[in-house]
Amino acid sequence: MANVRVDDKFWAPRIEINRTRSLEHQYEELIKTGRIANFEIAAGTRKGQFQGRYYNDSDVYKWIEAASYSLAAHPDAKLDARIDEVINKIGAAQQKDGYLHTFIQLLHPDEKWANLARYHELYCAGHLIEAAVAHHEATGKRNLLAIAVKFADHIDSIFGPSRRDGTSGHQEIELALVKLYRSTGERHYLHLAGFFLDQRGQKPSSFEREYRSRKTESQRATYQRFIKGSNIFDTSYCQDHLPVRQQTEVVGHAVRAMYMYSGMADVAYETSDQSLVDALTRLHHNVTLKRMYVTGGIGPSRHNEGFTRDYDLPNDTAYQETCASVGMILWNYRMLKLTGDGRYADVLEQSLYNAFLAGVSLSGDTFFYANPLYCSAVDTRIQGEEHISNRRQGWFSTACCPPNVARLLPSLGKYLYSQSPKALWVNLYVASSVNIELDGGGKVTLRQTNNYPWDGHIRLEVGMASPQEFSLHLRIPGWARNPQVRVNGNQAAPEIIGGYLELNRRWQNGNTVELALPMEAERLEANPEVPQDLGKIALRRGPLVYCLEQADNPGDIDQMLLPVSSRLESHFEPDLLNGVTVVTGRAMLLKSPSWNDQLYRPAVATTPEPVKFRAIPYYAWANRQEGKMAVWVTASK
Amino acid sequence: MANVRVDDKFWAPRIEINRTRSLEHQYEELIKTGRIANFEIAAGTRKGQFQGRYYNDSDVYKWIEAASYSLAAHPDAKLDARIDEVINKIGAAQQKDGYLHTFIQLLHPDEKWANLARYHELYCAGHLIEAAVAHHEATGKRNLLAIAVKFADHIDSIFGPSRRDGTSGHQEIELALVKLYRSTGERHYLHLAGFFLDQRGQKPSSFEREYRSRKTESQRATYQRFIKGSNIFDTSYCQDHLPVRQQTEVVGHAVRAMYMYSGMADVAYETSDQSLVDALTRLHHNVTLKRMYVTGGIGPSRHNEGFTRDYDLPNDTAYQETCASVGMILWNYRMLKLTGDGRYADVLEQSLYNAFLAGVSLSGDTFFYANPLYCSAVDTRIQGEEHISNRRQGWFSTACCPPNVARLLPSLGKYLYSQSPKALWVNLYVASSVNIELDGGGKVTLRQTNNYPWDGHIRLEVGMASPQEFSLHLRIPGWARNPQVRVNGNQAAPEIIGGYLELNRRWQNGNTVELALPMEAERLEANPEVPQDLGKIALRRGPLVYCLEQADNPGDIDQMLLPVSSRLESHFEPDLLNGVTVVTGRAMLLKSPSWNDQLYRPAVATTPEPVKFRAIPYYAWANRQEGKMAVWVTASK
Repeated sequence: MANVRVDDKFWAPRIEINRTRSLEHQYEELIKTGRIANFEIAAGTRKGQFQGRYYNDSDVYKWIEAASYSLAAHPDAKLDARIDEVINKIGAAQQKDGYLHTFIQLLHPDEKWANLARYHELYCAGHLIEAAVAHHEATGKRNLLAIAVKFADHIDSIFGPSRRDGTSGHQEIELALVKLYRSTGERHYLHLAGFFLDQRGQKPSSFEREYRSRKTESQRATYQRFIKGSNIFDTSYCQDHLPVRQQTEVVGHAVRAMYMYSGMADVAYETSDQSLVDALTRLHHNVTLKRMYVTGGIGPSRHNEGFTRDYDLPNDTAYQETCASVGMILWNYRMLKLTGDGRYADVLEQSLYNAFLAGVSLSGDTFFYANPLYCSAVDTRIQGEEHISNRRQGWFSTACCPPNVARLLPSLGKYLYSQSPKALWVNLYVASSVNIELDGGGKVTLRQTNNYPWDGHIRLEVGMASPQEFSLHLRIPGWARNPQVRVNGNQAAPEIIGGYLELNRRWQNGNTVELALPMEAERLEANPEVPQDLGKIALRRGPLVYCLEQADNPGDIDQMLLPVSSRLESHFEPDLLNGVTVVTGRAMLLKSPSWNDQLYRPAVATTPEPVKFRAIPYYAWANRQEGKMAVWVTASK
Repeated sequence: MANVRVDDKFWAPRIEINRTRSLEHQYEELIKTGRIANFEIAAGTRKGQFQGRYYNDSDVYKWIEAASYSLAAHPDAKLDARIDEVINKIGAAQQKDGYLHTFIQLLHPDEKWANLARYHELYCAGHLIEAAVAHHEATGKRNLLAIAVKFADHIDSIFGPSRRDGTSGHQEIELALVKLYRSTGERHYLHLAGFFLDQRGQKPSSFEREYRSRKTESQRATYQRFIKGSNIFDTSYCQDHLPVRQQTEVVGHAVRAMYMYSGMADVAYETSDQSLVDALTRLHHNVTLKRMYVTGGIGPSRHNEGFTRDYDLPNDTAYQETCASVGMILWNYRMLKLTGDGRYADVLEQSLYNAFLAGVSLSGDTFFYANPLYCSAVDTRIQGEEHISNRRQGWFSTACCPPNVARLLPSLGKYLYSQSPKALWVNLYVASSVNIELDGGGKVTLRQTNNYPWDGHIRLEVGMASPQEFSLHLRIPGWARNPQVRVNGNQAAPEIIGGYLELNRRWQNGNTVELALPMEAERLEANPEVPQDLGKIALRRGPLVYCLEQADNPGDIDQMLLPVSSRLESHFEPDLLNGVTVVTGRAMLLKSPSWNDQLYRPAVATTPEPVKFRAIPYYAWANRQEGKMAVWVTASK
């Protein structure tokens, strides 16, 4: 990531708003909601009570991770100092033995490591480690890394094959320990990650054994989510129903699933464990072929914040948590690294430009937790569940999503390119430059310019001191038809293998590659097994999924029918929603005699009126006045 | 009810199966699941532990009520003796002071009247009282009535204006106390019913005060449903958000709402309290105009077993609990009694023939708890939640629905006719005879014959010793257009007022009335505010709502489009589903190129194939092999 500089017209302003607005806004929320004070109270430097939920420490860690990525690309002494100030508070709260979890320290000191199913100690530890590695890489400082290492070593002294068993109710520690291994070279962290993965799926479950050992009714009550019927302890909610290598279906809480699969991919990458890769391949098939929204988002149900069953993809009640989309990006990136297969980059791109990006407003200070694909404009907020709303909110009592957005955006550079011994792979078309060192020491710069995602013309220029032979692999997205490529102005016709075309040659300074990915707006239909999308179509152009929003359309969008085969047009509107390409075309507007105060009446045959529709990218919805929105629109027959 | 004899070709076989099959089957389940043993254990005549849930006593009471209604119409010495045997066990379990609730007696004796929000003591007392009154009326015996009176007097000694406050988390006691008042003439039961209604909607809620007084964390945990956010105690789940006279929207748990409105209507009837009638009228408007399925069922959400918001009526996840449909029948019957307005009879009929009747199989031994309006044929059962299924089940761990069906069917006679001083009102067209005594002592018999609901021709014949002047009011259902009526063969043209036509004359023995309610199959559309029914139509013929079931149709019913204006035909099929009139017509079947293992693809324009559809009454669905079912079908445009 340090070698990539993003200067993309689409992403750079979002990253800059994230830096100037989101990070500041979220820091204020961390202060206001007592999340930082919890560390001071645990350290004894402030009086007061623990505030919030048992996972609140993680929001602070994620903010540090986000701020560190931002710092890496954009030095900022004030932010640097602010981070150090927060790190000092964290360090002061850490116990002598390395333990650190302010909720347990302040409210339930007797529950230390006693309720792995619920209390997220290992989850928070994972976010601490991720923050520490990011902070160390961005600044070279070791202050947070030392805290993380101390906690990780404490964890390692407690859990393991010859020590106690157990694993985290919410996965995260696994992928974090692999990061710590990579950062420190200490292989025991990798082993511990594998251990935590291997703990899942035992019979009886480690969580059930923990539950059986709890003494009081109030302790036992915290396991309620797992209790189904009188004698069934079902831990599929946290992917503990089977050993990880035997899992075939994506189940349970979507974020937990994504973080676990990411951890599995990391361990597989480091250990070449093919049985993990096989399981991940099966799970990826299941989610992408049966349980994923067209936006690349996942997890339809608010009730388990996760998966239900094959082809159950409701639009109005779509949960599609923003964090789950972050998880899809994390997992697919690791699958891409593991396999080099472009279809993982396709899913990454799909989640990134659609489900993920809808999670944050253009202004950078409000966020979706749940992301519906249909909005009736009725206020669907439920008292006490402000995270399910048709309007983005500034913050949430469970605030996982805002800092997840904030850490993903400034780390975007990480996902753009991959390197193999004699090749550079271009995964995403984001205007940027990258410096690499080839096997053998040759240094190459690649400069990518484009007007993506509005336009599919990509220009690449290589720079180097002396000619170098290597392959340039360019990803051809699954949505692209008839891509054209020119090298130094001359048409080339390389084969596309695994979603990438390969240009192998002896490159010289100033050589150019022009890739044309024709972007035509098109209609999609869903597999008829998806009951909620029957008879409906969605619009896609390039990587972007579109939606109809009420503000752009001449009649109630629920009463608009889209023909399956008329001409679609698109043009860029610079003043709309910070500049978007809209898709327009013919539609039919149903006109029915006015409804009085009836609920049902004999059906009236009517002649629809021809109108023109205008669709905007899904990511940009809910940035204007409240109104209806639909990704899937009824097709006229 | 004692004066009505049902001999209807449609209903009598269902009532007979209820008598011969359902009552027997349910008794076996009461035994098997320990529901009767709980009384013996509480009495000390059997060793063992309480089994099941805290409301299990009510299932036994409801079974006795059902069996008593059956006994009233059909003497059966064996059943009579079996009821007495169960009553003896109940009596033995009753405490000296009259208290009776085996869950509390056996498991939580220290929680007596301490957790009104949850433990259903008053709810079970209500069902005991209903059973006792029914048993007394059916048999003349006082054994169960004495138990109920003793418990009611105990309750009356504890709760009341000068005694302690509080009301039941689950309503039922209110309507039961009015029944007990009517049966015994003891007015204090009526006052107590009013007291329990008036307890609702206080600030802070009586349930919140109860919660604040609880000492242990495990006690407090039982109030979780009410806790929304850190400082919000929301009791709308049990209609405790506002004083009953100020309520305007149907909210919360649907069965609780229906039972409460029924109790309010009973109290209003006895006390002429117009403020209660006004509230009920508002609530009725809200439910029928914004929150009711086309089947007359209510309560879309499984999460509160109840209401969500206006126009939210999902089909696939429709909860539409069978007990809530029973509740709609109970409430609408009381509104009809209170106002004489036929629209309440319309809703009663709509719920009875559709949402309610779908709750029980033709064989009488399996039941729906939740009743979807769309079934994708995927097994939607959730482990530990077998009450949400696309197949009827024999029993449920929460078994409220089967005995509610079993008590409604044999009491059908109650709903058919009403009497006012000089008039007889025919509410429902069910072949039957009724004996009434007019003001002044004249005795009249009315004999109703018909082939309803398949045919709208109704024949009525009056019988009497000497001519009598009175009015015969015949309900003209809201769905009927151009009804015709003949008296002794001569066309009459009475006005229709409040949904009834009035024939006032001096009737002579053998006079006949012929009413013709033309029954044409028709298409319905839902208010476009209902997102889930947009672009769809439903079929109705007379009082019956129809559905497409996969077994009757030539292609995937999800791929069938119904024209809005082509001709619909109907004919009776004697061998189908115990004999039903089917509705048939033209449809278009979408043919799309086969789907491989894809989830989304570019939309393909296709030419649909003309086919013929066949629809069956909704109540009869899921009585054959598993397959898709839809009430709302996409309309072709």
